[in-house]
Amino acid sequence: MSDKIVTAAALVIGDEILSGRTKDKNIGTIAEHLTSIGIRLSEVRVVADDEGDIVAALDDLRTRYDYVFTTGGIGPTHDDITADAVAKAFGVPIGIDERAVALMRPAYAKRGLELNEARLRMARIPEGASLIANSVSIAPGFMIENVVVMAGVPSIMESMLKDATSHIETGACMQSTSISLERPEAEIADLFREHQNSFPDVAMGSYPHFEDGRYRTELVLRSTDAARLGTAVSELRKVLEKQGLI
Amino acid sequence: MSDKIVTAAALVIGDEILSGRTKDKNIGTIAEHLTSIGIRLSEVRVVADDEGDIVAALDDLRTRYDYVFTTGGIGPTHDDITADAVAKAFGVPIGIDERAVALMRPAYAKRGLELNEARLRMARIPEGASLIANSVSIAPGFMIENVVVMAGVPSIMESMLKDATSHIETGACMQSTSISLERPEAEIADLFREHQNSFPDVAMGSYPHFEDGRYRTELVLRSTDAARLGTAVSELRKVLEKQGLI
Repeated sequence: MSDKIVTAAALVIGDEILSGRTKDKNIGTIAEHLTSIGIRLSEVRVVADDEGDIVAALDDLRTRYDYVFTTGGIGPTHDDITADAVAKAFGVPIGIDERAVALMRPAYAKRGLELNEARLRMARIPEGASLIANSVSIAPGFMIENVVVMAGVPSIMESMLKDATSHIETGACMQSTSISLERPEAEIADLFREHQNSFPDVAMGSYPHFEDGRYRTELVLRSTDAARLGTAVSELRKVLEKQGLI
Repeated sequence: MSDKIVTAAALVIGDEILSGRTKDKNIGTIAEHLTSIGIRLSEVRVVADDEGDIVAALDDLRTRYDYVFTTGGIGPTHDDITADAVAKAFGVPIGIDERAVALMRPAYAKRGLELNEARLRMARIPEGASLIANSVSIAPGFMIENVVVMAGVPSIMESMLKDATSHIETGACMQSTSISLERPEAEIADLFREHQNSFPDVAMGSYPHFEDGRYRTELVLRSTDAARLGTAVSELRKVLEKQGLI
């Protein structure tokens, strides 16, 4: 961990997300994990299983952010084209990686499954990549330069995300504090805007909820500087108390 | 409905999604809805509450797809900057829209709420936009050229998405059929690839699940041509039956 701002993008790959057939669960997991290790998730994209779309998104994102985390498209079937698209984006060859085979062979043998051609497809890794461990189903993800390539199945993605953490540089942790109000956000909007103007270095967001016929608002303050965050929160509490809002 | 391919992108706007604090539910809803009305969701982006980021994403997406659907950032607080960013992207003025005020005034009066400055902020609509109805909390969304701007709260977003449907051109409906197998996908990968090669005009995807220690695979075939889809599905069933896989 350092004081540096480390940024990342997530690239979710898969027709099934865009058709609505599968509801993505990985974006939230990645967002929460990166926030917890001091990496700022700055953008997410979802693209189809289309080589041109994947390469274009990768080339745009990997040059703009410190890291890119992809999910999906590294399984054994013909629609799994992520590894090839990543190799293409980096202009490197791709082939069956003996390190991956060495991990997969005993695991498949143990489960009585043949390491057939389709399964070997999951050992296709771009040249120069490091492997990312998969403790769930063994076939690994990989990291090439600043791009981490993970599976789309949430439990496998989580396992890979955990392993990837040891391969990347983390940054200054964003700390956050929430204040919940039983008021609609329009009633605190003016004072909250003024408070934001007084603390321009603390990020402040207001999130409305409408539940059981009642409006609620959550005010969230975020900063990498814990002391500054503490001051901003206690000053805001004072203002809210003075106006009888909490 | 026509035979035309109509494409769209979704742009989810909000720091709270990127920090992981809020888990997005709108992408799945939009994807499912657009698929059902024959619009192909081709890309999704999530960006922060940052004017530059919003304008850049809008300018990129609105020129590449027939429609762009945005969610988030149209509430009453200082971090709600979507309407202004959209006006900036289109180079049009923005101000309080009397049509929006006329909708909001009686609704707020009925609820005993003051139409204060913060609430009037939700009536800021770029010049030339049509209003999109919000049956939940009244403050409207809007549509300007090919961009539909909706709220982030899921129930309000759904209401706006429903209303927006009557303002847009829909296309040829994508039909889909799934076949579920109690097999890991590596065991059907070869025949499925061959089948895709025989029907290059039918989109075919394979989706693995791992539950209760068992591998399952769902094969999904999709086409706007129902007859062609029917043929591809029945031919695939024959192949699977012949090999004792179903």
